[in-house]
Amino acid sequence: MKREKHDLVIVGAGPAGISAGIYAARYKVDFEIIGQTPGGNMSESYDIENYPGLEDVTPGHDLADRMLNQLRRFGASPKSDDIQSIIKTKEGFTLLGRNAEYQAKSVLLALGMARNKLGVPGENELEGKGVAYCATCDGFFYREKIVAVVGGGDSAVTAALYLADIAKKVYLIVRKPELRAEPAWQDKLKKDKRIEILFETNVKEIHGVDKVESILLEGKKNELKLDGVFIEIGQTPQTILYKSLGLKTTDKDLVIVDVAQKTSVKGVWAAGDITTNSNGLRQIVTAASEGAVAAVDIFTEFKKSN
Amino acid sequence: MKREKHDLVIVGAGPAGISAGIYAARYKVDFEIIGQTPGGNMSESYDIENYPGLEDVTPGHDLADRMLNQLRRFGASPKSDDIQSIIKTKEGFTLLGRNAEYQAKSVLLALGMARNKLGVPGENELEGKGVAYCATCDGFFYREKIVAVVGGGDSAVTAALYLADIAKKVYLIVRKPELRAEPAWQDKLKKDKRIEILFETNVKEIHGVDKVESILLEGKKNELKLDGVFIEIGQTPQTILYKSLGLKTTDKDLVIVDVAQKTSVKGVWAAGDITTNSNGLRQIVTAASEGAVAAVDIFTEFKKSN
Repeated sequence: MKREKHDLVIVGAGPAGISAGIYAARYKVDFEIIGQTPGGNMSESYDIENYPGLEDVTPGHDLADRMLNQLRRFGASPKSDDIQSIIKTKEGFTLLGRNAEYQAKSVLLALGMARNKLGVPGENELEGKGVAYCATCDGFFYREKIVAVVGGGDSAVTAALYLADIAKKVYLIVRKPELRAEPAWQDKLKKDKRIEILFETNVKEIHGVDKVESILLEGKKNELKLDGVFIEIGQTPQTILYKSLGLKTTDKDLVIVDVAQKTSVKGVWAAGDITTNSNGLRQIVTAASEGAVAAVDIFTEFKKSN
Repeated sequence: MKREKHDLVIVGAGPAGISAGIYAARYKVDFEIIGQTPGGNMSESYDIENYPGLEDVTPGHDLADRMLNQLRRFGASPKSDDIQSIIKTKEGFTLLGRNAEYQAKSVLLALGMARNKLGVPGENELEGKGVAYCATCDGFFYREKIVAVVGGGDSAVTAALYLADIAKKVYLIVRKPELRAEPAWQDKLKKDKRIEILFETNVKEIHGVDKVESILLEGKKNELKLDGVFIEIGQTPQTILYKSLGLKTTDKDLVIVDVAQKTSVKGVWAAGDITTNSNGLRQIVTAASEGAVAAVDIFTEFKKSN
């Protein structure tokens, strides 16, 4: 197996990792950036129009390409590998990938989140064609349309409230007989006549040819004709890489970081959706910002200790 | 005098304010954004290449225009006014501008910083033509050139260290007989043979026709031939607007904010260079991120309380 040695290894090539790479390159830090999907979830977003600086609606993969080209301009590019484990050593860290083994003095975890899927027929086929996972990102495209939100937590309820101001009609499809969302949100939801809640209801199938046309249900109704389905059933951090390092996390498995993106373990920084910073907003701009902050702090620590 | 009433008034139209406006508009918050310089300091930056998503080197005013156009697409545009004072009232806040009086339930302060100037002949005339105020922003353009950094604090010393990796030669011009920068930085500086420190030296004039050619000094040397002068003598927050509100600040007048950009005063948020978040990095991406976080948190508070 190949072996590489760097001052810094960035794990993850979404906006947090790429932004960290841009800043690290400009600060002449010796680093490698490793990811499975260049661009991360960003590259899978249908259309983006809220990232500051985008004059026009921009497909996610376009913005991802711009950031990756920018990184290349500074001489770096994500290496495709899948890190299996990170072990603390006397000199720093050993990261074991499928293709190579990496030695690093410091590690920046920019792992992102995996959006939870319903796992029903039609979901994968119609993603980006009416099946969406981010109301803030894609809601604007459903003006005067009929949409459903699937989920019962804060993100589902806020998505429904947000969409009610845009869409003609919003269904909230909740598996359980009650909501998990916080009471203030529930009060708000009950007052909103544009939202119809279907409790104890499951989505069985999503139908449509080139775009979503209807969903099949099990519960209060059998079928809904609609234009969009927002699946808001949470995101899952890939905790395997940081749990073994003993990083302090919240009870929701978010990595606790300070204002410089330092984790509780010396030599390990974290940025993007997996951290406690940015108030859980999880936008491209928040991830990019945290990546920049982390990279500059890593540079600062190197300069101090060398 | 004209009177306006809004749920939210954003004070400042740099990247933090514009980003907050983009998010507030998309969340359908009733708001006004008020600023003296659309784009803020960003619009005065010579060339920007580290803002994630910029494939090519982009003049600051270009990026500012893109963000302003994006904001306009969502129906908002900065109102040109100069807020003189903000007073807490029973219903919220009264902001007194030169052109109008604004009532607001909530206020987002995105005031930015004023970069301190030397105040010597040639400085204003050659700004962006060799006179620069941000090594992270503009350092890259001085590859193999001769530059000077003016200042003795952390930002001047880190700028000199950063530039030493890029430029052919770096002079550090320090007014006092010693540095204010922290010891770790000073150790590093002393080891770096590419940096020459001139203590007890003042810049008297900056010379050049279309670009910086030399500086006149008072102290250890009389003149230096060079290509660039980085003025790193600090930034000054415009504290007058927030001191009177009684916001908690650090001893450097930064507004103390939590992870949601809330200040110590209910109904007042802050974002961008004036806050304690983002580890003092003060980049466009950090300001834009903080603006987005603040706007969404303000929306969340409105939804809860309405």
